[in-house]
Amino acid sequence: MGDRVLVPWEENLRNLPAGLRGGVYDGAGEPIGDLADVVFYVVPYGRTQRVDLIERMPRLRVVQLLTAGYEHALEVLPAGVTLANGRGLHDASTAEHALALMLAAQRELPRWAADQKERAWRPHYTRSLAGSRVLIVGYGSIGAAIEERLAPHECEILRVARNPRPDMDVHGVADLHRLLPRADIVVLAAPHTPQTEGLIGAPELALLTDGALVVNVGRGPLLDTTALLAEEGRIRAALDVTDPEPLPADHPLWDAPGVDITPHVAGGSATFYPRASRFVDSQLRRWAAGEPLENVVPLRR
Amino acid sequence: MGDRVLVPWEENLRNLPAGLRGGVYDGAGEPIGDLADVVFYVVPYGRTQRVDLIERMPRLRVVQLLTAGYEHALEVLPAGVTLANGRGLHDASTAEHALALMLAAQRELPRWAADQKERAWRPHYTRSLAGSRVLIVGYGSIGAAIEERLAPHECEILRVARNPRPDMDVHGVADLHRLLPRADIVVLAAPHTPQTEGLIGAPELALLTDGALVVNVGRGPLLDTTALLAEEGRIRAALDVTDPEPLPADHPLWDAPGVDITPHVAGGSATFYPRASRFVDSQLRRWAAGEPLENVVPLRR
Ligand SMILES: NC(=O)c1ccc[n+]([C@@H]2O[C@H](COP(=O)([O-])OP(=O)(O)OC[C@H]3O[C@@H](n4cnc5c(N)ncnc54)[C@H](OP(=O)(O)O)[C@@H]3O)[C@@H](O)[C@H]2O)c1
Ligand SMILES: NC(=O)c1ccc[n+]([C@@H]2O[C@H](COP(=O)([O-])OP(=O)(O)OC[C@H]3O[C@@H](n4cnc5c(N)ncnc54)[C@H](OP(=O)(O)O)[C@@H]3O)[C@@H](O)[C@H]2O)c1
Repeated sequence: MGDRVLVPWEENLRNLPAGLRGGVYDGAGEPIGDLADVVFYVVPYGRTQRVDLIERMPRLRVVQLLTAGYEHALEVLPAGVTLANGRGLHDASTAEHALALMLAAQRELPRWAADQKERAWRPHYTRSLAGSRVLIVGYGSIGAAIEERLAPHECEILRVARNPRPDMDVHGVADLHRLLPRADIVVLAAPHTPQTEGLIGAPELALLTDGALVVNVGRGPLLDTTALLAEEGRIRAALDVTDPEPLPADHPLWDAPGVDITPHVAGGSATFYPRASRFVDSQLRRWAAGEPLENVVPLRR
Repeated sequence: MGDRVLVPWEENLRNLPAGLRGGVYDGAGEPIGDLADVVFYVVPYGRTQRVDLIERMPRLRVVQLLTAGYEHALEVLPAGVTLANGRGLHDASTAEHALALMLAAQRELPRWAADQKERAWRPHYTRSLAGSRVLIVGYGSIGAAIEERLAPHECEILRVARNPRPDMDVHGVADLHRLLPRADIVVLAAPHTPQTEGLIGAPELALLTDGALVVNVGRGPLLDTTALLAEEGRIRAALDVTDPEPLPADHPLWDAPGVDITPHVAGGSATFYPRASRFVDSQLRRWAAGEPLENVVPLRR
């Protein structure tokens, strides 16, 4: 019995390079059949990442994730197995959601939705995105995709990453406190690391102008929830990620005024699937052809 | 007593060209003082357009509107008076609102807002704007501003105007029925004319694919409300303008599933004011210098 690849979608099976055998595992229930012959495992995308199956795959050579985060796979990855992640696959979806949150907050869509429930036609003038100054904190793959989508909106854009890149007008995180007072909108798109935990806490929120909007599409712990609640009514927020997550039913954030919450859905919209499926196809084609894979995670051990 | 200009904002008064005298009338209450010396009247922007004051201005030479529509002024405009409108001043605001409505509908922000009210964290996968085909119906000043803002969103764009402009890939309205079945999203940004009334009615909605979204930032009567209600549950809609308008409290559109309503607020957001104020300044400067005004409405009579 020869080598087998485990792919998440039927389509990947149909596009399999000549000479490869495969099976579909989409993450629902348990995979069919013995896993002993699996050499290339594409971990299905979902709330539960079945990296625990890896220990039942003695002949495994490659683990392909569809998420950008990979910490969960490191813990169970056998020596000598290549790990590749899904960096870039969620950019369009996540950046699009960030724009949706910003525009909805500036144009008060939640208020109009509440008025609609009351059958009340009560127009008034709103803020706009145009003319605002937007500070992007975390200027990586997703941060740049957010900027691209902001570009036609006639707003001024400021950028912060870990390291400054003066040639690209990107500030280092050391400039954060200097930039915060100038921002009408702050978008968080950095990863969760020990350095980014509480990156926006009480001192940072205090530097923001009245009515400023904080959008978080990165990770919940970037923003100090308690500090945000203390600024209730002064600082607005639109959060796709929260701390804690999922947000418990009795948490005060749910009905804090001026806070809009979406349940960590930025990355997982329709546009992700065709992208991810094509990426799986191309990774398998590269592998079958003996070419280097893309998005290989550098492992030091 | 010399000539006087009536401007909507204090700022305009401060920027008045040398030799001009002026007063501020912002549309609240009645203007102060005699109107007999007013030669240039900037009609304040608001729900009620005080064009009725024109008949009290015997020395009037110019009426400057801050709206694009000017039908209301034609009725009371004395012969020989120049009429200029606010074409272009609302483009950014209106196009931005169109994007907000599209993104909110695709990413299901109204549903997340309802879940937030119930303190329920219930993620699921949504549609996206990326990968959608968007048909812009009415490709004028606002239609083009919508396209600009759609451009980075990885969606395909189709354009319809009254007259085809093949060099710019703009279809004539004769192609509308051929294009509708291909659209995931239809954005209406045409004016209300006898030809556009009911432009999207029962036959047009029937041509749309299941789950298609109709966004209206033009005028309510472009879309046949009864026909839309008959497609309830199959066709989604996000409407800044409705027919009738304002929507009466007992109208079935208020709670039609998949219909989001904002109360005609697309054009009137923060970004409008600095634009409009600068435009008034530049029109007064032109007038004082004897230069031709911008946005003069061609009058045939
Ligand atoms: N909400 C969702 O559904 C969703 C979906 C996908 C991803 N995400 C989150 O988005 C994060 C970013 O993704 P990505 O693909 O854009 O990652 P990326 O390309 O690695 O970019 C991360 C950016 O964050 C910056 N950064 C790191 N530490 C920082 C610090 N201490 N202060 C300021 N900036 C710092 C990095 O700076 P340097 O450039 O200087 O290194 C880089 O610019 C992911 O880690 C994930 O947590 C969320
Ligand atoms: N919701 C709001 O708050 C708000 C704010 C501002 C404006 N508006 C509305 O938006 C409308 C458009 O404004 P604009 O400044 O973009 O006007 P515009 O520059 O005059 O453009 C109008 C466009 O509509 C097209 N059109 C006219 N009749 C048509 C027909 N029968 N079928 C298809 N297309 C037709 C025109 O085609 P041609 O190019 O071939 O002539 C043109 O492309 C305004 O009239 C106003 O009603 C709404």
